[in-house]
Amino acid sequence: MPKAVILSSGGLDSTTCLAMAIDMGYEPITLTFDYGQRHRIELDAAKEVGEYYGVKQHIIADIGLFRDIGQSALTDAIEVPKNLSVDDLSNDIPVTYVPARNLVFLAMATGVAETQGASDIFIGVNALDYSGYPDCRPEFINAFSTAANLATKAGSEGTTVRIQTPLIHLSKSEIIKAGHALDAPYHLTHSCYAPTNDNESCGQCDSCLLRLKGFADASLVDPISYAGT
Amino acid sequence: MPKAVILSSGGLDSTTCLAMAIDMGYEPITLTFDYGQRHRIELDAAKEVGEYYGVKQHIIADIGLFRDIGQSALTDAIEVPKNLSVDDLSNDIPVTYVPARNLVFLAMATGVAETQGASDIFIGVNALDYSGYPDCRPEFINAFSTAANLATKAGSEGTTVRIQTPLIHLSKSEIIKAGHALDAPYHLTHSCYAPTNDNESCGQCDSCLLRLKGFADASLVDPISYAGT
Repeated sequence: MPKAVILSSGGLDSTTCLAMAIDMGYEPITLTFDYGQRHRIELDAAKEVGEYYGVKQHIIADIGLFRDIGQSALTDAIEVPKNLSVDDLSNDIPVTYVPARNLVFLAMATGVAETQGASDIFIGVNALDYSGYPDCRPEFINAFSTAANLATKAGSEGTTVRIQTPLIHLSKSEIIKAGHALDAPYHLTHSCYAPTNDNESCGQCDSCLLRLKGFADASLVDPISYAGT
Repeated sequence: MPKAVILSSGGLDSTTCLAMAIDMGYEPITLTFDYGQRHRIELDAAKEVGEYYGVKQHIIADIGLFRDIGQSALTDAIEVPKNLSVDDLSNDIPVTYVPARNLVFLAMATGVAETQGASDIFIGVNALDYSGYPDCRPEFINAFSTAANLATKAGSEGTTVRIQTPLIHLSKSEIIKAGHALDAPYHLTHSCYAPTNDNESCGQCDSCLLRLKGFADASLVDPISYAGT
Protein backbone atom coordinates (compact mmCIF):
# COMPACT_ATOMS: atom_id res chain seq x y z
CA MET A 1 0.00 0.00 0.00
CA PRO A 2 1.32 3.49 -0.79
CA LYS A 3 1.84 5.62 2.31
CA ALA A 4 0.28 9.05 2.84
CA VAL A 5 0.86 11.65 5.54
CA ILE A 6 -2.49 13.02 6.77
CA LEU A 7 -2.49 16.30 8.67
CA SER A 8 -4.83 15.46 11.51
CA SER A 9 -6.21 18.07 13.91
CA GLY A 10 -8.97 15.96 15.39
CA GLY A 11 -11.53 18.14 13.62
CA LEU A 12 -14.21 17.43 11.08
CA ASP A 13 -12.25 18.26 7.95
CA SER A 14 -9.03 16.38 8.70
CA THR A 15 -10.99 13.36 9.92
CA THR A 16 -12.88 13.34 6.61
CA CYS A 17 -9.53 13.55 4.79
CA LEU A 18 -8.24 10.59 6.77
CA ALA A 19 -11.38 8.57 5.95
CA MET A 20 -10.94 9.43 2.26
CA ALA A 21 -7.22 8.53 2.20
CA ILE A 22 -7.97 5.13 3.78
CA ASP A 23 -10.83 4.60 1.34
CA MET A 24 -8.43 5.38 -1.53
CA GLY A 25 -6.10 2.61 -0.32
CA TYR A 26 -3.35 4.58 1.40
CA GLU A 27 -1.58 3.45 4.54
CA PRO A 28 -2.01 6.56 6.71
CA ILE A 29 0.65 8.27 8.81
CA THR A 30 -1.18 10.87 10.90
CA LEU A 31 0.65 14.07 11.83
CA THR A 32 -0.75 16.31 14.56
CA PHE A 33 0.73 19.65 15.62
CA ASP A 34 0.99 20.85 19.17
CA TYR A 35 1.44 24.58 18.58
CA GLY A 36 0.19 25.81 21.93
CA GLN A 37 -3.43 25.90 20.81
CA ARG A 38 -5.67 26.92 23.68
CA HIS A 39 -8.19 24.21 22.81
CA ARG A 40 -5.92 21.30 23.71
CA ILE A 41 -8.75 18.81 23.53
CA GLU A 42 -7.93 18.82 19.77
CA LEU A 43 -4.82 16.75 20.49
CA ASP A 44 -6.84 14.10 22.32
CA ALA A 45 -9.44 14.03 19.56
CA ALA A 46 -6.72 13.52 16.91
CA LYS A 47 -5.30 10.64 18.92
CA GLU A 48 -8.69 8.98 19.35
CA VAL A 49 -9.52 9.30 15.67
CA GLY A 50 -6.15 7.69 14.85
CA GLU A 51 -6.83 4.85 17.29
CA TYR A 52 -10.30 4.35 15.80
CA TYR A 53 -8.64 3.65 12.44
CA GLY A 54 -5.76 1.61 13.92
CA VAL A 55 -3.19 4.05 12.49
CA LYS A 56 0.31 2.61 13.04
CA GLN A 57 2.25 5.89 13.01
CA HIS A 58 0.69 8.86 14.80
CA ILE A 59 3.30 11.63 15.02
CA ILE A 60 2.82 14.64 17.30
CA ALA A 61 5.09 17.52 16.32
CA ASP A 62 5.69 20.22 18.88
CA ILE A 63 5.97 23.74 17.47
CA GLY A 64 6.80 25.87 20.47
CA LEU A 65 7.61 28.75 18.13
CA PHE A 66 3.91 29.54 17.62
CA ARG A 67 3.54 29.97 21.37
CA ASP A 68 6.60 32.22 21.49
CA ILE A 69 5.65 34.52 18.63
CA GLY A 70 1.94 34.54 19.49
CA GLN A 71 -0.51 36.99 17.97
CA SER A 72 -3.41 34.62 17.36
CA ALA A 73 -6.55 34.07 19.39
CA LEU A 74 -5.89 30.33 19.03
CA THR A 75 -2.62 30.49 20.96
CA ASP A 76 -2.73 33.78 22.87
CA ALA A 77 -4.87 35.45 25.46
CA ILE A 78 -6.86 37.14 22.69
CA GLU A 79 -10.59 36.50 23.03
CA VAL A 80 -12.14 34.16 20.47
CA PRO A 81 -15.08 36.06 18.98
CA LYS A 82 -18.59 34.69 19.51
CA ASN A 83 -21.26 35.29 16.93
CA LEU A 84 -24.99 34.86 17.03
CA SER A 85 -25.28 33.28 13.61
CA VAL A 86 -23.19 32.16 10.69
CA ASP A 87 -24.36 35.24 8.76
CA ASP A 88 -22.30 37.39 11.12
CA LEU A 89 -19.03 35.78 9.99
CA SER A 90 -16.82 38.26 8.26
CA ASN A 91 -14.72 37.62 5.16
CA ASP A 92 -11.74 39.38 6.74
CA ILE A 93 -8.80 37.43 8.08
CA PRO A 94 -9.94 36.59 11.63
CA VAL A 95 -8.05 36.92 14.92
CA THR A 96 -7.88 33.12 15.10
CA TYR A 97 -5.43 33.18 12.17
CA VAL A 98 -2.06 31.68 13.19
CA PRO A 99 0.73 33.27 11.12
CA ALA A 100 1.97 31.02 8.32
CA ARG A 101 0.43 27.99 10.00
CA ASN A 102 -0.29 25.83 6.97
CA LEU A 103 3.05 26.83 5.47
CA VAL A 104 4.85 25.43 8.51
CA PHE A 105 2.53 22.40 8.78
CA LEU A 106 3.03 21.43 5.14
CA ALA A 107 6.79 22.00 5.34
CA MET A 108 7.00 19.59 8.26
CA ALA A 109 4.70 17.10 6.53
CA THR A 110 7.06 17.20 3.56
CA GLY A 111 9.95 16.24 5.84
CA VAL A 112 7.91 13.38 7.31
CA ALA A 113 6.83 12.18 3.85
CA GLU A 114 10.41 12.22 2.65
CA THR A 115 11.81 10.21 5.56
CA GLN A 116 8.90 7.75 5.75
CA GLY A 117 8.70 7.13 2.02
CA ALA A 118 5.18 8.57 1.68
CA SER A 119 4.13 9.66 -1.79
CA ASP A 120 1.22 11.87 -0.76
CA ILE A 121 0.24 14.47 1.83
CA PHE A 122 -3.45 15.05 2.62
CA ILE A 123 -4.54 18.39 4.06
CA GLY A 124 -8.16 19.26 4.75
CA VAL A 125 -8.17 22.86 3.58
CA ASN A 126 -11.18 24.17 1.79
CA ALA A 127 -11.59 27.34 -0.14
CA LEU A 128 -15.32 27.87 0.35
CA ASP A 129 -15.93 27.73 4.10
CA TYR A 130 -12.34 28.70 4.74
CA SER A 131 -12.95 31.32 7.44
CA GLY A 132 -10.77 33.87 5.65
CA TYR A 133 -7.41 32.16 6.16
CA PRO A 134 -5.04 33.06 3.28
CA ASP A 135 -3.16 29.75 3.52
CA CYS A 136 -6.24 27.71 2.58
CA ARG A 137 -6.37 29.02 -0.99
CA PRO A 138 -5.67 26.72 -3.97
CA GLU A 139 -3.05 29.20 -5.26
CA PHE A 140 -1.12 28.71 -2.05
CA ILE A 141 -1.33 24.92 -2.19
CA ASN A 142 -0.08 24.87 -5.79
CA ALA A 143 2.81 27.22 -5.04
CA PHE A 144 3.75 25.21 -1.96
CA SER A 145 3.74 21.98 -3.94
CA THR A 146 6.23 23.44 -6.42
CA ALA A 147 8.50 24.65 -3.61
CA ALA A 148 8.30 21.35 -1.71
CA ASN A 149 9.31 19.31 -4.69
CA LEU A 150 12.28 21.58 -5.37
CA ALA A 151 13.29 21.38 -1.70
CA THR A 152 13.50 17.66 -1.34
CA LYS A 153 15.83 14.88 -2.31
CA ALA A 154 12.80 13.06 -3.74
CA GLY A 155 11.87 16.04 -5.91
CA SER A 156 15.45 16.50 -7.11
CA GLU A 157 15.55 12.87 -8.20
CA GLY A 158 12.38 13.14 -10.27
CA THR A 159 9.85 11.53 -7.97
CA THR A 160 7.48 13.90 -6.28
CA VAL A 161 5.44 14.42 -3.16
CA ARG A 162 1.84 15.14 -4.07
CA ILE A 163 -0.28 17.49 -1.93
CA GLN A 164 -3.86 16.19 -1.93
CA THR A 165 -6.68 18.56 -0.97
CA PRO A 166 -9.85 16.52 -1.52
CA LEU A 167 -12.02 19.03 0.36
CA ILE A 168 -10.79 22.19 -1.31
CA HIS A 169 -13.86 22.84 -3.45
CA LEU A 170 -16.46 21.30 -1.12
CA SER A 171 -18.85 23.18 1.14
CA LYS A 172 -19.03 22.15 4.80
CA SER A 173 -22.24 20.21 4.16
CA GLU A 174 -20.68 18.37 1.21
CA ILE A 175 -17.68 17.48 3.39
CA ILE A 176 -19.99 16.12 6.08
CA LYS A 177 -22.02 14.11 3.56
CA ALA A 178 -18.83 12.63 2.10
CA GLY A 179 -17.46 11.72 5.53
CA HIS A 180 -20.81 10.32 6.64
CA ALA A 181 -20.89 8.06 3.58
CA LEU A 182 -17.48 6.70 4.65
CA ASP A 183 -18.57 6.25 8.30
CA ALA A 184 -16.01 8.81 9.50
CA PRO A 185 -15.99 8.85 13.34
CA TYR A 186 -17.44 12.34 13.74
CA HIS A 187 -18.46 11.50 17.31
CA LEU A 188 -14.76 11.62 18.22
CA THR A 189 -14.01 14.95 16.52
CA HIS A 190 -13.63 18.39 18.05
CA SER A 191 -14.10 21.71 16.23
CA CYS A 192 -14.76 24.38 18.87
CA TYR A 193 -12.24 27.21 19.31
CA ALA A 194 -13.51 28.07 22.81
CA PRO A 195 -14.65 24.93 24.68
CA THR A 196 -16.07 25.17 28.19
CA ASN A 197 -14.13 23.96 31.21
CA ASP A 198 -15.89 20.61 30.75
CA ASN A 199 -14.60 20.47 27.16
CA GLU A 200 -18.05 20.98 25.72
CA SER A 201 -18.26 22.90 22.47
CA CYS A 202 -19.50 26.49 22.80
CA GLY A 203 -21.77 26.51 19.76
CA GLN A 204 -21.03 30.19 19.10
CA CYS A 205 -17.47 30.55 17.77
CA ASP A 206 -16.86 30.67 14.00
CA SER A 207 -15.86 27.03 13.96
CA CYS A 208 -18.93 25.78 15.85
CA LEU A 209 -21.27 27.89 13.72
CA LEU A 210 -19.81 26.55 10.47
CA ARG A 211 -20.00 22.99 11.79
CA LEU A 212 -23.62 23.30 12.95
CA LYS A 213 -24.69 24.92 9.69
CA GLY A 214 -22.89 22.15 7.77
CA PHE A 215 -24.78 19.39 9.57
CA ALA A 216 -28.07 21.28 9.19
CA ASP A 217 -27.52 21.82 5.45
CA ALA A 218 -26.61 18.14 5.06
CA SER A 219 -29.77 17.16 6.98
CA LEU A 220 -27.64 15.10 9.36
CA VAL A 221 -27.37 15.11 13.14
CA ASP A 222 -24.12 16.33 14.71
CA PRO A 223 -23.21 13.52 17.16
CA ILE A 224 -21.27 15.76 19.59
CA SER A 225 -22.90 17.74 22.40
CA TYR A 226 -22.91 21.50 22.85
CA ALA A 227 -22.88 23.60 26.03
CA GLY A 228 -26.38 24.44 27.28
CA THR A 229 -28.19 21.96 25.06
CA MET B 1 14.94 50.87 10.69
CA PRO B 2 13.24 48.07 8.74
CA LYS B 3 13.38 44.72 10.51
CA ALA B 4 14.79 41.54 8.99
CA VAL B 5 14.76 37.96 10.23
CA ILE B 6 18.22 36.40 9.81
CA LEU B 7 18.48 32.61 9.91
CA SER B 8 21.50 32.19 12.14
CA SER B 9 23.27 28.86 12.63
CA GLY B 10 26.45 30.21 14.18
CA GLY B 11 28.34 29.26 11.02
CA LEU B 12 30.35 31.25 8.53
CA ASP B 13 27.61 31.83 5.98
CA SER B 14 24.79 32.94 8.27
CA THR B 15 27.19 35.18 10.21
CA THR B 16 28.19 36.83 6.94
CA CYS B 17 24.48 37.28 6.13
CA LEU B 18 23.92 38.91 9.50
CA ALA B 19 26.87 41.27 8.95
CA MET B 20 25.47 42.18 5.52
CA ALA B 21 21.92 42.79 6.82
CA ILE B 22 23.25 45.09 9.54
CA ASP B 23 25.44 46.88 6.99
CA MET B 24 22.35 47.36 4.78
CA GLY B 25 20.56 49.10 7.68
CA TYR B 26 18.21 46.39 8.93
CA GLU B 27 17.37 45.82 12.57
CA PRO B 28 18.14 42.10 12.86
CA ILE B 29 15.98 39.44 14.53
CA THR B 30 18.11 36.30 14.64
CA LEU B 31 16.38 32.92 14.41
CA THR B 32 18.27 29.78 15.37
CA PHE B 33 16.90 26.23 15.09
CA ASP B 34 17.47 23.51 17.62
CA TYR B 35 16.66 20.46 15.52
CA GLY B 36 18.63 17.91 17.47
CA GLN B 37 21.83 18.57 15.58
CA ARG B 38 24.64 16.46 16.99
CA HIS B 39 27.05 19.40 16.88
CA ARG B 40 25.24 21.44 19.54
CA ILE B 41 28.10 23.90 19.83
CA GLU B 42 26.38 25.59 16.84
CA LEU B 43 23.66 26.90 19.16
CA ASP B 44 26.23 28.53 21.45
CA ALA B 45 28.07 30.02 18.48
CA ALA B 46 24.82 31.52 17.15
CA LYS B 47 24.10 33.05 20.55
CA GLU B 48 27.60 34.53 20.84
CA VAL B 49 27.44 36.00 17.35
CA GLY B 50 24.08 37.60 18.24
CA GLU B 51 25.54 39.03 21.45
CA TYR B 52 28.54 40.38 19.55
CA TYR B 53 26.13 42.44 17.44
CA GLY B 54 23.87 43.37 20.35
CA VAL B 55 20.87 41.73 18.66
CA LYS B 56 17.71 42.52 20.67
CA GLN B 57 15.63 39.50 19.62
CA HIS B 58 17.40 36.15 19.37
CA ILE B 59 14.76 33.44 18.92
CA ILE B 60 15.62 29.76 19.36
CA ALA B 61 13.00 27.51 17.77
CA ASP B 62 12.91 23.90 18.84
CA ILE B 63 12.07 21.43 16.09
CA GLY B 64 11.88 18.09 17.85
CA LEU B 65 10.34 16.58 14.72
CA PHE B 66 13.73 16.36 13.01
CA ARG B 67 15.01 14.26 15.90
CA ASP B 68 11.94 12.02 15.75
CA ILE B 69 12.00 11.36 12.00
CA GLY B 70 15.80 11.15 11.81
CA GLN B 71 17.66 9.84 8.77
CA SER B 72 20.44 12.41 8.61
CA ALA B 73 24.03 12.14 9.82
CA LEU B 74 23.54 15.58 11.40
CA THR B 75 20.84 14.32 13.79
CA ASP B 76 21.22 10.54 13.87
CA ALA B 77 23.83 7.99 14.77
CA ILE B 78 24.97 7.92 11.13
CA GLU B 79 28.68 8.57 10.77
CA VAL B 80 29.69 11.94 9.29
CA PRO B 81 32.06 11.13 6.41
CA LYS B 82 35.66 12.31 6.62
CA ASN B 83 37.55 13.17 3.46
CA LEU B 84 41.21 13.73 2.80
CA SER B 85 40.72 16.72 0.55
CA VAL B 86 38.03 18.93 -0.89
CA ASP B 87 38.49 17.16 -4.24
CA ASP B 88 36.96 14.03 -2.72
CA LEU B 89 33.62 15.77 -2.12
CA SER B 90 30.87 14.23 -4.19
CA ASN B 91 28.11 16.09 -6.00
CA ASP B 92 25.52 13.62 -4.72
CA ILE B 93 23.13 14.55 -1.92
CA PRO B 94 25.20 13.73 1.20
CA VAL B 95 24.17 11.79 4.31
CA THR B 96 24.29 15.06 6.25
CA TYR B 97 21.16 16.20 4.36
CA VAL B 98 18.25 16.87 6.76
CA PRO B 99 14.93 16.25 4.96
CA ALA B 100 13.18 19.47 3.92
CA ARG B 101 15.28 21.46 6.38
CA ASN B 102 15.36 24.82 4.62
CA LEU B 103 11.69 24.44 3.69
CA VAL B 104 10.80 24.14 7.40
CA PHE B 105 13.29 26.85 8.45
CA LEU B 106 11.96 29.36 5.91
CA ALA B 107 8.34 28.52 6.75
CA MET B 108 9.00 29.30 10.42
CA ALA B 109 10.97 32.43 9.52
CA THR B 110 7.93 33.58 7.53
CA GLY B 111 5.75 33.19 10.64
CA VAL B 112 8.28 35.17 12.70
CA ALA B 113 8.53 37.89 10.03
CA GLU B 114 4.76 38.21 9.89
CA THR B 115 4.27 38.53 13.65
CA GLN B 116 7.27 40.80 14.22
CA GLY B 117 6.59 43.08 11.27
CA ALA B 118 9.81 42.20 9.46
CA SER B 119 9.89 42.90 5.72
CA ASP B 120 12.83 40.65 4.87
CA ILE B 121 14.27 37.22 5.62
CA PHE B 122 17.98 36.57 5.11
CA ILE B 123 19.19 33.01 4.52
CA GLY B 124 22.80 32.16 3.82
CA VAL B 125 22.30 29.52 1.15
CA ASN B 126 24.70 29.37 -1.73
CA ALA B 127 24.40 27.47 -4.93
CA LEU B 128 28.10 27.02 -5.71
CA ASP B 129 29.64 25.42 -2.64
CA TYR B 130 26.29 24.02 -1.63
CA SER B 131 27.38 20.50 -0.72
CA GLY B 132 24.64 18.97 -2.87
CA TYR B 133 21.63 20.04 -0.80
CA PRO B 134 18.57 20.44 -3.05
CA ASP B 135 17.04 23.13 -0.84
CA CYS B 136 19.90 25.57 -1.47
CA ARG B 137 19.04 26.06 -5.14
CA PRO B 138 17.78 29.44 -6.45
CA GLU B 139 14.76 27.68 -8.03
CA PHE B 140 13.72 26.50 -4.60
CA ILE B 141 14.13 29.94 -3.03
CA ASN B 142 12.03 31.56 -5.76
CA ALA B 143 9.28 28.95 -5.48
CA PHE B 144 9.26 29.24 -1.70
CA SER B 145 8.98 33.02 -1.90
CA THR B 146 5.86 32.71 -4.07
CA ALA B 147 4.29 30.20 -1.67
CA ALA B 148 5.17 32.26 1.44
CA ASN B 149 3.57 35.39 0.08
CA LEU B 150 0.40 33.50 -0.80
CA ALA B 151 0.34 31.90 2.66
CA THR B 152 0.46 35.03 4.74
CA LYS B 153 -1.85 37.77 5.78
CA ALA B 154 0.83 40.24 4.64
CA GLY B 155 0.99 38.66 1.18
CA SER B 156 -2.78 38.57 0.86
CA GLU B 157 -2.95 42.28 1.62
CA GLY B 158 -0.42 43.18 -1.07
CA THR B 159 2.69 43.73 1.01
CA THR B 160 5.27 41.01 0.76
CA VAL B 161 7.99 39.25 2.68
CA ARG B 162 11.20 39.25 0.68
CA ILE B 163 13.64 36.31 0.90
CA GLN B 164 17.17 37.69 0.60
CA THR B 165 19.98 35.32 -0.37
CA PRO B 166 23.03 37.59 -0.69
CA LEU B 167 25.45 34.63 -0.78
CA ILE B 168 23.66 32.53 -3.36
CA HIS B 169 26.04 33.14 -6.25
CA LEU B 170 29.25 33.58 -4.21
CA SER B 171 31.99 31.03 -3.75
CA LYS B 172 33.14 30.26 -0.21
CA SER B 173 36.20 32.48 -0.66
CA GLU B 174 34.06 35.37 -1.92
CA ILE B 175 31.76 34.96 1.09
CA ILE B 176 34.76 35.07 3.44
CA LYS B 177 36.22 38.14 1.70
CA ALA B 178 32.85 39.93 1.94
CA GLY B 179 32.44 39.07 5.63
CA HIS B 180 36.04 39.99 6.38
CA ALA B 181 35.51 43.41 4.80
CA LEU B 182 32.57 43.91 7.20
CA ASP B 183 34.56 42.67 10.23
CA ALA B 184 32.23 39.70 10.71
CA PRO B 185 33.15 37.89 13.97
CA TYR B 186 34.43 34.71 12.33
CA HIS B 187 36.39 33.87 15.50
CA LEU B 188 33.01 33.10 17.15
CA THR B 189 31.67 30.90 14.34
CA HIS B 190 31.47 27.13 14.16
CA SER B 191 31.26 25.07 10.96
CA CYS B 192 32.42 21.52 11.80
CA TYR B 193 29.92 18.65 11.50
CA ALA B 194 31.95 16.36 13.77
CA PRO B 195 33.71 18.33 16.52
CA THR B 196 35.97 16.60 19.04
CA ASN B 197 34.92 16.14 22.66
CA ASP B 198 36.71 19.43 23.38
CA ASN B 199 34.57 21.13 20.72
CA GLU B 200 37.51 21.58 18.40
CA SER B 201 36.77 21.39 14.68
CA CYS B 202 37.85 18.15 13.01
CA GLY B 203 39.28 19.69 9.84
CA GLN B 204 38.19 16.68 7.77
CA CYS B 205 34.39 16.74 7.34
CA ASP B 206 32.84 18.34 4.23
CA SER B 207 32.07 21.53 6.12
CA CYS B 208 35.60 21.95 7.54
CA LEU B 209 37.20 21.21 4.18
CA LEU B 210 35.06 23.80 2.39
CA ARG B 211 35.78 26.37 5.10
CA LEU B 212 39.54 25.78 5.06
CA LYS B 213 39.67 25.92 1.27
CA GLY B 214 37.61 29.15 1.35
CA PHE B 215 40.05 30.87 3.69
CA ALA B 216 43.03 29.59 1.68
CA ASP B 217 41.51 30.80 -1.61
CA ALA B 218 40.75 34.17 -0.02
CA SER B 219 44.36 34.37 1.26
CA LEU B 220 43.03 34.94 4.78
CA VAL B 221 43.73 33.16 8.06
CA ASP B 222 40.89 31.18 9.65
CA PRO B 223 40.78 32.46 13.26
CA ILE B 224 39.40 29.22 14.77
CA SER B 225 41.55 26.29 15.84
CA TYR B 226 41.43 22.75 14.48
CA ALA B 227 42.09 19.44 16.23
CA GLY B 228 45.71 18.33 16.01
CA THR B 229 47.08 21.68 14.86
